[in-house]
Amino acid sequence: MAVRWFYLAVLALCSLGLMCILFTIYWMRYWHSGFAWDGTVLMFNCHPVLMVTGMVVLYSAASLVYRLPQSWVGPKLPWKIGHAAMHLMAFILTVLGLFAVFNFHNHSKIPHLYSLHSWLGITAVFLFACQWLLGFVVFLLPWASLQLRSLLKPFHVFFGASILSLAIASVVSGINEKLFFSLKNGTSLYSNLPSEAVFANSTGMLVVVFGLLVLYILLASSWKRPELGMQAERQALLRGGE
Amino acid sequence: MAVRWFYLAVLALCSLGLMCILFTIYWMRYWHSGFAWDGTVLMFNCHPVLMVTGMVVLYSAASLVYRLPQSWVGPKLPWKIGHAAMHLMAFILTVLGLFAVFNFHNHSKIPHLYSLHSWLGITAVFLFACQWLLGFVVFLLPWASLQLRSLLKPFHVFFGASILSLAIASVVSGINEKLFFSLKNGTSLYSNLPSEAVFANSTGMLVVVFGLLVLYILLASSWKRPELGMQAERQALLRGGE
Repeated sequence: MAVRWFYLAVLALCSLGLMCILFTIYWMRYWHSGFAWDGTVLMFNCHPVLMVTGMVVLYSAASLVYRLPQSWVGPKLPWKIGHAAMHLMAFILTVLGLFAVFNFHNHSKIPHLYSLHSWLGITAVFLFACQWLLGFVVFLLPWASLQLRSLLKPFHVFFGASILSLAIASVVSGINEKLFFSLKNGTSLYSNLPSEAVFANSTGMLVVVFGLLVLYILLASSWKRPELGMQAERQALLRGGE
Repeated sequence: MAVRWFYLAVLALCSLGLMCILFTIYWMRYWHSGFAWDGTVLMFNCHPVLMVTGMVVLYSAASLVYRLPQSWVGPKLPWKIGHAAMHLMAFILTVLGLFAVFNFHNHSKIPHLYSLHSWLGITAVFLFACQWLLGFVVFLLPWASLQLRSLLKPFHVFFGASILSLAIASVVSGINEKLFFSLKNGTSLYSNLPSEAVFANSTGMLVVVFGLLVLYILLASSWKRPELGMQAERQALLRGGE
């Protein structure tokens, strides 16, 4: 039964993650004229897509690498490299997402980092950078002792989950903020709940549901790499047993 | 050493929680003319204070009842009643906070529940109500079997933490939204980062730090009621041992 629930959760997660990205792209294409990399508002439109893709979906996928039963047997190093490499890709997309909004602000003479959304978002990105560097030095490079790794691992997991939570809170406040900016004239006020508002609000709720499912699998589920023993359950999952 | 860290964390938590409430009150008093219960914008000002007090600070205090070492010995029932009663008080403050904003919207002919902030907030309150009722029926009333309680407990803890996370994301998006509303004229635009913006952004960041500390103690710390055994650690904490 465990294996069915696990793969059902993976399927739900992949579908939800893909929907989060596609909904954000559709929102920006259909209501905001699509994308460019030229400092205009079309460059700003890359910001939500890159942040949702990098800081939420790819970050989550990278975080959940050790929940795959395939990672529970054999050497851990290839999975560690995969975990670090996927997080690095997520970080690169995130930095590109930041670059898009900073460049747009420069181009349009808008001050940087004034809203609570931006304060929270930049904090999340800063913590992400610290977490990646510390993880690389302690868990991937060979010099750290097992004691140090065991001591830091619960903090690494907790901060990983915290950074995702901050990213989701940033996405929610960012969507809210963008809708107040774009729906402020008489015919399509945000408070009249036009189709764009319903669509973007739903995208935000989808990101929240995705994030909660990721946090559940990361923190509360029993699908964890067994440190010692639990051979039977591990083999049952790998064989697809009931 | 464990006992020192625990009481240091409790002290930090109490101070941070109190600061979250006092900062929100100060924001509404100093920049928005204080409070009333009359359907005007002064009634709206009760909304952030009641939500931060009920849905964040008191909710967190209620959630952490079982982390107090005093709750680890003797009968569990008085602590369960305390846990449920504090959550009920938190829920009552939350409902009053919702009433304040609904009443203000009615009075000013503003539509209800259009922003992503409101969608997320109302979802958090709905889940809070479900969680309280399910908790009351399963964990407080005497009819449920131990098996059912053991089965549901991890979900109860996870949803408890999730509801707090949603509440914090709602607070962040709510502060962001309120600042865009109140700082939109030429002399005190939000983007110029006037003193109100710095103060309210800092309040939001304080709520986030408070929430992360609560989630750490709730999910990741070792300060949990021991189900079986762990007598030595429990007694050391109660005696104040090192």
